[in-house]
Amino acid sequence: MRQAGRYMKEYQAIRQKASILDICHTPELACEVTLQPVRRFDIDAAIIFADILLPFEPLGLGLSFNEGTGPVIHKPVRSAEDVAALPNTAPGDLQYVLDAVSLVKQELNGRVPLIGFAGAPFTLASYAIEGGSSKTFLETKKLMYGDPETWHSLLGKLAELVGSFLAAQARAGAQALQLFDSWVGVLSPQDYERFVLPHTRRTIRLSKEAGVPLIHFGTNTATLLPLLAEAGGDVIGVDWRIPLDTAWQQLPDRGIQGNLDPAALLAPDEELRTQVHDILDRAGGKPGHIFNLGHGVLPQTPPEALDRVIELVRERREPQEPA
Amino acid sequence: MRQAGRYMKEYQAIRQKASILDICHTPELACEVTLQPVRRFDIDAAIIFADILLPFEPLGLGLSFNEGTGPVIHKPVRSAEDVAALPNTAPGDLQYVLDAVSLVKQELNGRVPLIGFAGAPFTLASYAIEGGSSKTFLETKKLMYGDPETWHSLLGKLAELVGSFLAAQARAGAQALQLFDSWVGVLSPQDYERFVLPHTRRTIRLSKEAGVPLIHFGTNTATLLPLLAEAGGDVIGVDWRIPLDTAWQQLPDRGIQGNLDPAALLAPDEELRTQVHDILDRAGGKPGHIFNLGHGVLPQTPPEALDRVIELVRERREPQEPA
Repeated sequence: MRQAGRYMKEYQAIRQKASILDICHTPELACEVTLQPVRRFDIDAAIIFADILLPFEPLGLGLSFNEGTGPVIHKPVRSAEDVAALPNTAPGDLQYVLDAVSLVKQELNGRVPLIGFAGAPFTLASYAIEGGSSKTFLETKKLMYGDPETWHSLLGKLAELVGSFLAAQARAGAQALQLFDSWVGVLSPQDYERFVLPHTRRTIRLSKEAGVPLIHFGTNTATLLPLLAEAGGDVIGVDWRIPLDTAWQQLPDRGIQGNLDPAALLAPDEELRTQVHDILDRAGGKPGHIFNLGHGVLPQTPPEALDRVIELVRERREPQEPA
Repeated sequence: MRQAGRYMKEYQAIRQKASILDICHTPELACEVTLQPVRRFDIDAAIIFADILLPFEPLGLGLSFNEGTGPVIHKPVRSAEDVAALPNTAPGDLQYVLDAVSLVKQELNGRVPLIGFAGAPFTLASYAIEGGSSKTFLETKKLMYGDPETWHSLLGKLAELVGSFLAAQARAGAQALQLFDSWVGVLSPQDYERFVLPHTRRTIRLSKEAGVPLIHFGTNTATLLPLLAEAGGDVIGVDWRIPLDTAWQQLPDRGIQGNLDPAALLAPDEELRTQVHDILDRAGGKPGHIFNLGHGVLPQTPPEALDRVIELVRERREPQEPA
């Protein structure tokens, strides 16, 4: 998950003088914001500060972030003509992200590994088609069902762009990658297989040319897990709707990331401990489990709760020698 | 699902002169709107026109429906004091719904059976706590995790009210009942079991005193199905995120309702036919399958698409004699 955010006062201080897009566009600011949680928390990795929708800028769709209402895409893509008109793009069109990756890598100086990331074709397409966030994803499904040729053309273009962008981040210094298909859980498995899987597979194959591990993340994916694994990824990220052990049984040859409900960070200590321990119990100490939240940190989260989660995980993972 | 709605011009004509609450409060209007889809479509059952949030009126929470933003609960319930202050209520406080049920039953005159319904304790509590719709259900989970005693007290009160309200609808003439736990899919199975299951079980037991079958419905419930069945219900409703046969295997002793994606009603005929046939194939002609959408009809739906779905289901279910 993106680690920096509104829940950190250090981040809010930067946001006083710079918009989200300003931060993304300015490698020094992106670097600073990426490092904030690494300084503040005892975490095992950094994740580059960026946004999955940045590719919409070189694609000419127009992107802004409005306080409260989320992202707005000014020229939604809804027809064969719209898709045909998309310009050819290359990872170099997002050079500012690659520069931020290089800068963070240098600043981290080996302290923790750096994760690069991008949005998966389905989730990106849903924003491009809806023009922003959606509850029903109706325009997305209308295009998918109503004009499969245009749909596959759009997802094919996004797969090429995102796959090569991920590989470029790895070449710029990212030691692992994460592919966010955050909203893919609105699809049935049958629709995922027909309309999404080939494009996500292409994306992951392209990214793997750079030779670093990839985490394939989604939410609401309890019925999609074997298909997500088929599309690719060394590690599959799961949310809290499925018990970690149940999910892992469906992914015998993969690592697993997850799966604390972000709302648990606002619970009393006893409840938080119960939930963290439950996840660790279900992981059973097996290698290949990346402890994480099942989705992003909520803005209302007290940073101390993240400290506590990290402490609870370390207590179990790295038992202290008896005195 | 509620059958009448914005997608029907007959319903919109009534809404020109009456609000949603006006219709609910006036048995003659509720009856008229309940009968509209029965006249327009060749469906097998009617469902009473009402709203799951109506119990908030006798509970003194204040309820209104704003165009576009959904329901607003004017006095959200967030503390032990708020829960303690809830007045005792009885089904008679919603007499207008019971009167509408009796009136519809009389008007239907046996043409098709009538379904009564209510919201399940979790989904009702989430609206009462959040004060309306929510994306993260954070206030709900904060109360659930942070003050379990107050949580269980609130859900206990809702279970009593809703269970007896369902039984009262059956006594007023409803021949089947549906319990809507629409948003329960935001919980992990562990949380469902600890915080919700006992209250839903109590609700269903109370409703069963009237001796009619009950459909227990939710969305996003792929990992909750055995627990929903444990809570009760003769039929479990599922959405499109889980293939019907996969869901049914987890519910060996129950009927199943579902599970067409409402977005498929905006797809071209070939795609719609593929999806309807896929569901019927997965049901395998076994008794105990109620064909339905996986969630409510979207406002953008052309009524002709519902005609077509009904036709496709009837073609398979009731093969014509050769001429």
